[in-house]
Amino acid sequence: MNAQVSTSADELADAVVAVEVDVRFAETDLMGVVHHAAYVVWFEVGRVAWMAAAGMPYTEIAAGGHHFAVTGIHASYRLSARFGDTVRIHTRLAELRSRQVKFSYELRRVADEAVIATGVSEHICVDLEGRMTKIPQTVADRLWAGAAALTRHPNEAASSH
Amino acid sequence: MNAQVSTSADELADAVVAVEVDVRFAETDLMGVVHHAAYVVWFEVGRVAWMAAAGMPYTEIAAGGHHFAVTGIHASYRLSARFGDTVRIHTRLAELRSRQVKFSYELRRVADEAVIATGVSEHICVDLEGRMTKIPQTVADRLWAGAAALTRHPNEAASSH
Amino acid sequence: MNAQVSTSADELADAVVAVEVDVRFAETDLMGVVHHAAYVVWFEVGRVAWMAAAGMPYTEIAAGGHHFAVTGIHASYRLSARFGDTVRIHTRLAELRSRQVKFSYELRRVADEAVIATGVSEHICVDLEGRMTKIPQTVADRLWAGAAALTRHPNEAASSH
Amino acid sequence: MNAQVSTSADELADAVVAVEVDVRFAETDLMGVVHHAAYVVWFEVGRVAWMAAAGMPYTEIAAGGHHFAVTGIHASYRLSARFGDTVRIHTRLAELRSRQVKFSYELRRVADEAVIATGVSEHICVDLEGRMTKIPQTVADRLWAGAAALTRHPNEAASSH
Repeated sequence: MNAQVSTSADELADAVVAVEVDVRFAETDLMGVVHHAAYVVWFEVGRVAWMAAAGMPYTEIAAGGHHFAVTGIHASYRLSARFGDTVRIHTRLAELRSRQVKFSYELRRVADEAVIATGVSEHICVDLEGRMTKIPQTVADRLWAGAAALTRHPNEAASSH
Repeated sequence: MNAQVSTSADELADAVVAVEVDVRFAETDLMGVVHHAAYVVWFEVGRVAWMAAAGMPYTEIAAGGHHFAVTGIHASYRLSARFGDTVRIHTRLAELRSRQVKFSYELRRVADEAVIATGVSEHICVDLEGRMTKIPQTVADRLWAGAAALTRHPNEAASSH
Repeated sequence: MNAQVSTSADELADAVVAVEVDVRFAETDLMGVVHHAAYVVWFEVGRVAWMAAAGMPYTEIAAGGHHFAVTGIHASYRLSARFGDTVRIHTRLAELRSRQVKFSYELRRVADEAVIATGVSEHICVDLEGRMTKIPQTVADRLWAGAAALTRHPNEAASSH
Repeated sequence: MNAQVSTSADELADAVVAVEVDVRFAETDLMGVVHHAAYVVWFEVGRVAWMAAAGMPYTEIAAGGHHFAVTGIHASYRLSARFGDTVRIHTRLAELRSRQVKFSYELRRVADEAVIATGVSEHICVDLEGRMTKIPQTVADRLWAGAAALTRHPNEAASSH
């Protein structure tokens, strides 16, 4: 019996990792607010933080010869983020299957806790040549175990730096 | 009776504008392929080209005090783009309502015409203070007229530069 | 007599503000290291942090109708930064004149304190229409006073988030 | 006697390659103009175009196991570029030595030929592990030969796409 069996989708929902980013001047556009493509990069900051907090750093996945290639991005923008704002990215592991992984995101403006955007990213596991492959069992096990640990001990909002 | 009445959704589907971008070295990441956030910028290049080809340049919409703020992005990634590739962005006006506009995108690798990604962007019209507002009638009329003209006279793939 | 008189160039050299950034996956390129343009954005993160630590946040300068437009960038790259690295940006106010301001930067890899890059940015003060103008006296005074305070009480390395 | 001997620095100055880029909305910032880091990416677009026009495409250098790692960037900004502008990048090979290469750039706004920025990039040749190495003789020969050919037959401004 592996870790996967003992962690339900409901439990995954509780394994949330928060990380904060300060809006960079370079991330704004002529509308005076953050450009929508920057949020896609923030999602990435969020899932990298999630994996680090779960004890399965992405650098180790890559060092092991695998990548989580992005196959889908869905973003809903509700409010603008502005230069001077700090944004907190709440990331969850939304789904983990043998060959696919999905993360979900909720972005909040720290000043007033307003939700400014939500999103989902979908990934497949690929090897270094870009060929689709199964997620290595040790990687999957560590992600599930990390999710379980995060559920029991929610992390504090760290800064991504 | 305005232009909107005489342009059906089916006709919109034929009003496609193509524009080519050469992959920039800066758009790649350590996986050796184009980072997924770059495609979101390419979608923008595509809709800017669509509006220019339709005779309603975005610069004029902005000069008139309006913006099409992004409320949603959906991207599906099928194949990687690499440095050295030229990518053709096919853009369509997918929907035009009184306060909302939606564009759809198909990205093809020019070398072999393979579809590398598809996507949709959803927008609301806002004024310079970011408040939601109706799309000015002249803007809507020119977009519909442009779509009709594009349907009758499909444009050649231009380069975005 | 104003603050400027009592703060020499030597003293400015001691008014250093440190801020840390975690390398973002999106900042890498196909060479497997951080793209050189990302450092230019990090310089900006550094001077924004310097101004905040000095008690003259850039958001207030902008709210007052002024910008420090970049007129020059000089960057020397010594070592690569990689995904997984944390980089500390050490920023100094290198020069402050009636219409110009210059910042200097030293970037260190936190893991081993190696200097990975150095740089300088040159700026002129402009109004919201982009016309060159004098730096408002209150802004200059607060920058000088901030530099003096930082010299007496060096800040700890903060995270930029 | 190789090509290097017969191409003087003066001749290099005539081997200029022009390429045009349309300002992308995403390249602007809240000052309403193009962010200064985007010019650094445009320099790269310029040197990639220079190498392609000279008959030594960068993709081939990389495929051969080498990269021109950036060791220095110097940029002088004179005028703003805005969304809606087309910018022409004029690139020259400023210096070519056994282990180093330098390119220079002049950016003009196409509408009025105004010079908006100038710059220089300095590079060393590295292998795929990032170790400094000599520029392969065949690469150097083809760059010199390309420079000579460009001097005799200046290229038309192409679009980078």
